[in-house]
Amino acid sequence: MSGNRQLINIDGKFEMHRGGELDAVGIAYETWGELADDRGNAILLFTGLSPSAHAASAKADPRPGWWEDMIGPGRAIDTDRYFVVCINSLGSCFGSTGPASTNPATGERYRLQFPVLSIEDIACGGGAVADALGIERFNCVVGPSMGGMTALAFAMLFPARVEALVLISSAARAAPFAIAMRSLQREAIRIDPAWDNGNYSSSGPEQGMHMARKLGMISYRSAEEWRTRFGRERVSGATEPFGIEFEIESYLEHHARKFIGSFDANCYLYLSRAMDLFDVADHGGCLEEGVACLQASRVLVIGVTTDILFPVWQQRELAELLKTPGRDVQLVELPSVQGHDSFLVDMDRFRPVIGRFLA
Amino acid sequence: MSGNRQLINIDGKFEMHRGGELDAVGIAYETWGELADDRGNAILLFTGLSPSAHAASAKADPRPGWWEDMIGPGRAIDTDRYFVVCINSLGSCFGSTGPASTNPATGERYRLQFPVLSIEDIACGGGAVADALGIERFNCVVGPSMGGMTALAFAMLFPARVEALVLISSAARAAPFAIAMRSLQREAIRIDPAWDNGNYSSSGPEQGMHMARKLGMISYRSAEEWRTRFGRERVSGATEPFGIEFEIESYLEHHARKFIGSFDANCYLYLSRAMDLFDVADHGGCLEEGVACLQASRVLVIGVTTDILFPVWQQRELAELLKTPGRDVQLVELPSVQGHDSFLVDMDRFRPVIGRFLA
Repeated sequence: MSGNRQLINIDGKFEMHRGGELDAVGIAYETWGELADDRGNAILLFTGLSPSAHAASAKADPRPGWWEDMIGPGRAIDTDRYFVVCINSLGSCFGSTGPASTNPATGERYRLQFPVLSIEDIACGGGAVADALGIERFNCVVGPSMGGMTALAFAMLFPARVEALVLISSAARAAPFAIAMRSLQREAIRIDPAWDNGNYSSSGPEQGMHMARKLGMISYRSAEEWRTRFGRERVSGATEPFGIEFEIESYLEHHARKFIGSFDANCYLYLSRAMDLFDVADHGGCLEEGVACLQASRVLVIGVTTDILFPVWQQRELAELLKTPGRDVQLVELPSVQGHDSFLVDMDRFRPVIGRFLA
Repeated sequence: MSGNRQLINIDGKFEMHRGGELDAVGIAYETWGELADDRGNAILLFTGLSPSAHAASAKADPRPGWWEDMIGPGRAIDTDRYFVVCINSLGSCFGSTGPASTNPATGERYRLQFPVLSIEDIACGGGAVADALGIERFNCVVGPSMGGMTALAFAMLFPARVEALVLISSAARAAPFAIAMRSLQREAIRIDPAWDNGNYSSSGPEQGMHMARKLGMISYRSAEEWRTRFGRERVSGATEPFGIEFEIESYLEHHARKFIGSFDANCYLYLSRAMDLFDVADHGGCLEEGVACLQASRVLVIGVTTDILFPVWQQRELAELLKTPGRDVQLVELPSVQGHDSFLVDMDRFRPVIGRFLA
């Protein structure tokens, strides 16, 4: 049913990329459009760290999705033409198995008993959904941010299943600045006494998640955007000592409050670390060897000049790395001002680039 | 006594720029070189947020100072020629009156009873030291980072006392990205239960200061430096769950641990906010009006291309703002890789620029 959350259950053991295994893994996903009889019109979409598989609205779930303006009839990812599958990441908390799920062996939540999560495991979750839907080969595999890492991992693990690849504000491996930003977010959660070594009750480490989200926002947007959008505007009304005085502080506070309660803290830790650990060079000893197996005939790499988390030099590195005789590799550097988050908000720039590539 | 910490006590009330007053204010400072008989060879130096007035070693205190390679006989700031005075900021905790000092009216520490601190107040502290030393006019007023804001405030408040100005990695006013980075540092301190609304005992909010320092380091250095210096190097040995795995994490941890106990948390909050509040445009309604009173005949503005906290556009803005007929304004953009902290570490680039200007 189009747009409705669906779930596949994987039979047997799910072997994790860095050791350990899971039983009774479920992967949640949503789909839009109709799969052609020859199953040759499918697009696979992986998400960033925090979204669910609800990338766009549909009859069965009319709430706007996280990429609402990108996916739909006549849109850049055209569901009149393509059958689109969006995967909720393994390790996340929106239907797929993750640290907040119940471990069938114990009847308790996994929490920190969940094995180390890798981007490759998330890609394998996508592979299991493809198997269940009977899709041998995708016209295109698309991913922004962490989803770009996952799309790349999918193409390395299942080379024959990827005809084209769209990597957006992503990277072949995490750079130390990004690791530092994410490490501090994890530390903010871990030092919150309410985290309790992962054994929190329902409310969880709200203060830690609050700080983590603010830190995240600093890396997701850009100084340029904030300069023109907020400048030195003040908020009205008195505040507590050293409380909020500037609009930029109020903006961060607003986003942090919205985030609390919407994402499980342990899942956040696992997914955040999975990005740090990802390195194409782990497959074969160097970046070039890692991608040598790829069979995709067309690749689109999109970067944003104001992105500090996955900066344009990483997009150039990716495009350079994926160039090989017989493959069409396009690199597009967009001057969007919203930094890493531009793919979510600067739709007027992103839509035509992705639309043209898929047309 | 050269290099020894000295103190002046200001008689009467010290009126604060944003309201309130202090009694019995002391300002700590150090000096190097000899003041000429005509008192015409003096250089005034303001510091960044956290250093003391101990900018260089001397007989009386042979410990290396925070700008050891810059100041001394034959060095860029040549103490064979100049009499150099470095001021410990009002509001700091290295001898000058601040939130950690005893309020003579109560016999207790000021803590949050300290009035709102402004960069202008720190500049006035420097003015009081100049009065006590009988220095009418400085050959040059120098300041890096927060010290550059203070040097600029000093030149606005005491136009006739400044012949030349050196502003390093500074700004005419705080931009929202910098405010956000500092606001998060203050929040990390404030949410530490050990902060106790400023009423902590001797150990204080160590966890908050630890997080604040890591956040600070992220804004003080550059992604480029970390990429070449750390890459994806791992630390050896197992760690706690989600603990330190990468060298970049270990580096931040090392700096955070060093910082704890070396700086008073309430002083940090006051000085940090003073930077956010600073705005040349508060003097007269716009930036141009704010600096219209300046009499300095020569200005050197130095910026670093990798600085994300006080980015080069702010150095260009400063240089543009200070240009006026009859004034020599030099803008130097250095390609140092160490970001905002470059003035402390990339001495081979900074020494000749400052040395030439003062020669």
